[in-house]
Amino acid sequence: MTNTQVTLVQIDNYGPWTVTPEPRREADLQTLQSRLYADISQFVGNRDGYVFFTRFDNMIAVTNGLSIADHELLQESVGNRYPVTLSLGVATGTSPVQALADATTTLQSAGSAQDKNRREILDGRIVADPHRTDGDVQIAHFDVINATGQYTDELNAYDSFIEIEQGYAELMRYMRHSHDSLSFFVGGDNIIVVCPDLEESDYQDAIAHVEESVDVDLQVGVGRGPTAHAAGFAAKHALETCRADGTRVEFD
Amino acid sequence: MTNTQVTLVQIDNYGPWTVTPEPRREADLQTLQSRLYADISQFVGNRDGYVFFTRFDNMIAVTNGLSIADHELLQESVGNRYPVTLSLGVATGTSPVQALADATTTLQSAGSAQDKNRREILDGRIVADPHRTDGDVQIAHFDVINATGQYTDELNAYDSFIEIEQGYAELMRYMRHSHDSLSFFVGGDNIIVVCPDLEESDYQDAIAHVEESVDVDLQVGVGRGPTAHAAGFAAKHALETCRADGTRVEFD
Amino acid sequence: MTNTQVTLVQIDNYGPWTVTPEPRREADLQTLQSRLYADISQFVGNRDGYVFFTRFDNMIAVTNGLSIADHELLQESVGNRYPVTLSLGVATGTSPVQALADATTTLQSAGSAQDKNRREILDGRIVADPHRTDGDVQIAHFDVINATGQYTDELNAYDSFIEIEQGYAELMRYMRHSHDSLSFFVGGDNIIVVCPDLEESDYQDAIAHVEESVDVDLQVGVGRGPTAHAAGFAAKHALETCRADGTRVEFD
Amino acid sequence: MTNTQVTLVQIDNYGPWTVTPEPRREADLQTLQSRLYADISQFVGNRDGYVFFTRFDNMIAVTNGLSIADHELLQESVGNRYPVTLSLGVATGTSPVQALADATTTLQSAGSAQDKNRREILDGRIVADPHRTDGDVQIAHFDVINATGQYTDELNAYDSFIEIEQGYAELMRYMRHSHDSLSFFVGGDNIIVVCPDLEESDYQDAIAHVEESVDVDLQVGVGRGPTAHAAGFAAKHALETCRADGTRVEFD
Repeated sequence: MTNTQVTLVQIDNYGPWTVTPEPRREADLQTLQSRLYADISQFVGNRDGYVFFTRFDNMIAVTNGLSIADHELLQESVGNRYPVTLSLGVATGTSPVQALADATTTLQSAGSAQDKNRREILDGRIVADPHRTDGDVQIAHFDVINATGQYTDELNAYDSFIEIEQGYAELMRYMRHSHDSLSFFVGGDNIIVVCPDLEESDYQDAIAHVEESVDVDLQVGVGRGPTAHAAGFAAKHALETCRADGTRVEFD
Repeated sequence: MTNTQVTLVQIDNYGPWTVTPEPRREADLQTLQSRLYADISQFVGNRDGYVFFTRFDNMIAVTNGLSIADHELLQESVGNRYPVTLSLGVATGTSPVQALADATTTLQSAGSAQDKNRREILDGRIVADPHRTDGDVQIAHFDVINATGQYTDELNAYDSFIEIEQGYAELMRYMRHSHDSLSFFVGGDNIIVVCPDLEESDYQDAIAHVEESVDVDLQVGVGRGPTAHAAGFAAKHALETCRADGTRVEFD
Repeated sequence: MTNTQVTLVQIDNYGPWTVTPEPRREADLQTLQSRLYADISQFVGNRDGYVFFTRFDNMIAVTNGLSIADHELLQESVGNRYPVTLSLGVATGTSPVQALADATTTLQSAGSAQDKNRREILDGRIVADPHRTDGDVQIAHFDVINATGQYTDELNAYDSFIEIEQGYAELMRYMRHSHDSLSFFVGGDNIIVVCPDLEESDYQDAIAHVEESVDVDLQVGVGRGPTAHAAGFAAKHALETCRADGTRVEFD
Repeated sequence: MTNTQVTLVQIDNYGPWTVTPEPRREADLQTLQSRLYADISQFVGNRDGYVFFTRFDNMIAVTNGLSIADHELLQESVGNRYPVTLSLGVATGTSPVQALADATTTLQSAGSAQDKNRREILDGRIVADPHRTDGDVQIAHFDVINATGQYTDELNAYDSFIEIEQGYAELMRYMRHSHDSLSFFVGGDNIIVVCPDLEESDYQDAIAHVEESVDVDLQVGVGRGPTAHAAGFAAKHALETCRADGTRVEFD
């Protein structure tokens, strides 16, 4: 059984801030958001977690191995260096969607995301060391078969993007509703999915569903480990096997 | 008539680099991508352009006001500071999609995105100063009505994301196929669309289409200017009017 | 005659901020300072200026070619992305020290650097386009002869640093008092000096003075141009000639 | 007794890289160096270490609490995101200077800093967990008394800088030769010194020496702890006591 530790990272009262006292330059907002994400990615990533940019004002992280003290330090460090602050909700569970739902509830119960008095919340619970196992996290790393040859080098860059985007939109809904999984586009033609304990046939079904629905051909490597990085790295290696052997689903 | 100058920014041979000699840590790739995007956003943005992260390995920019020399400097500066290099294709036109298609062709004709000998291409043409006008760029800035109240504070963070994402996916396809426009999710519940010379009814139709298709309620501010920033800033102010007055479409 | 445009960049009320409400983590302050400097370096640098980190809370820039509007944009962009704000004083003159003194007076007359009500000052004057010439800026780029062989590979890293530092300390005082010049350590064994209209013998004297005083052997390339980058790039090429030919002073 | 763990961080073959195939834009080098430093500062700092920019191509860190695996991860992460690589030498000892000397020897024995075949060295030894104590690190945090009132608000910004710099240059030499300590300017009027087991009278002597030599008045807070952050944070609090009470030396 998996036991995914999920952290919801929410910028406090961000929407109102972006237009106070009047709208801020879009390029500055884009820079701020993407650099904040990059910093969180480094902090979480060099503790073997993964964080996904999602909507940027709400980011979702897999944080097995990070303590509450680690979360406090992240919150403090961002507060020291940015004009905005973070609230963090943490939860765990065999279902990534349920864990995220619990993490979300933690923040929602403390106030609205646009409540200017709700700042730097940190609440929730982690998988304590004695309960951690080598199989707590399952990660699936999908990409589009021959995306460069079929799309990037053939279509205009926006139509390529629409194809990739459609594959992602279809996969995200399918994996969420059929398998309680969280799917994230991570650039290029790559989608990383945080899964419960799924089997090969589940991934075959997902690939078939996306192909039927929007005619985008996916392949996937799947890995398992005590942390997102360990599971994700195994998944990347498994995906290399797909690429080398022309297979569609590989477990590490 | 609009005359949008579009730049396609492509990281050279990026896919293969990410797995050579073996897969690189995902957190590092995410950090690299988002910081590279942030840097390009600052460079283009403080010359009054906009750049969108799109797929990260392929970014799309509106660069009215930037010269070829500016593009060269961006290319040189990135080459000096990153382990990857950029190719840039530039084109102009009354239709943003057509301009992007031309910019794409410029790069495609120089070689594959994964050709390791194709590096630091810079080609295309700009809107020369004598031909620039105050109405060259039209930007529409959409957001989701009451996204915080209806989604962020009510649903779990992933289901909120799915709702926003579905609205975006539907709008991007509609605007591309009905109106030759380029739509980009820019975080939160915001979508920025680079448009040709569209009218109020076109936006009303788009909003109605998205509402009917996926039940997501959008509002939009529209601006016009000689640059993406000028048009986009006007659009932001118009969107503030929507928010204040409860209207669905506002032109600045 | 040179006509150097100098900008003093001062973080508003920074000292008190670093200890409010209690001392902030040093690593966060170091990160904030060096990234802020890096951002200003990109902004000024891709407009062909130079900025030096100096004390980090007070940075000194050579900004020939940057307009007041450019300075406003820098101030706005930093204000949008950092928890601190900048004040900027700009002045020009044939003597870099005098120009900096005038730029400093501009800020001092608006209030103390630790006055919490003095924020985002921008004042001064630039070299207007009609008065700009190809020889407005003279830059000298010094380095230590065989620093790697004599110091880095031989001494412990701190004693190497002391040697370089002593050479710098001596040069900075000499160039400031004998030649109204501003010297900045820029990393490694490199010192960049912003000069008035100096001659070869002036540089020979400076090198001899440093050698006699602290036994550190310098060589220097000197360049001239309409901007700091143009002059500095010429100086770098001249320094390459020193390295290739074993000469001590080269003008481009 | 202290037991300081010191890491020498050296950019591999950096000097030659900066001029290959021809000199690179200075603004890009400055940006690269300061961002690389910032990243290392975050990595080391959020593990409770301190890193100092020193010469930028050679940085010195206090890394008590960081394992060899942590160092490997830093090296890998930088290698994934920058066009340059790092070599790291680690050593420990009761004398910070001796520890740094040992760390330096580790790298020097692997080849020259400008040997293009010497890349990503990682060698040395750490203070293993069983041997770590609460007093392993002693940090002294100096600043200049009333620097803003006496210098920043009175002198031109360069002459203020010279005053601060002279105080630093004098202190660094005194502390290195009299007390085997490593002193680093960290911005503003702040100097952080990594010390062995020094007493109050040692600091009084240092302050008196700097005052006599260059007429710069210093005050200092001193802290002790198992890590640089713990010791440095205590030192900052002690320095706040100096500021509040007008004392010159305070131990936390």
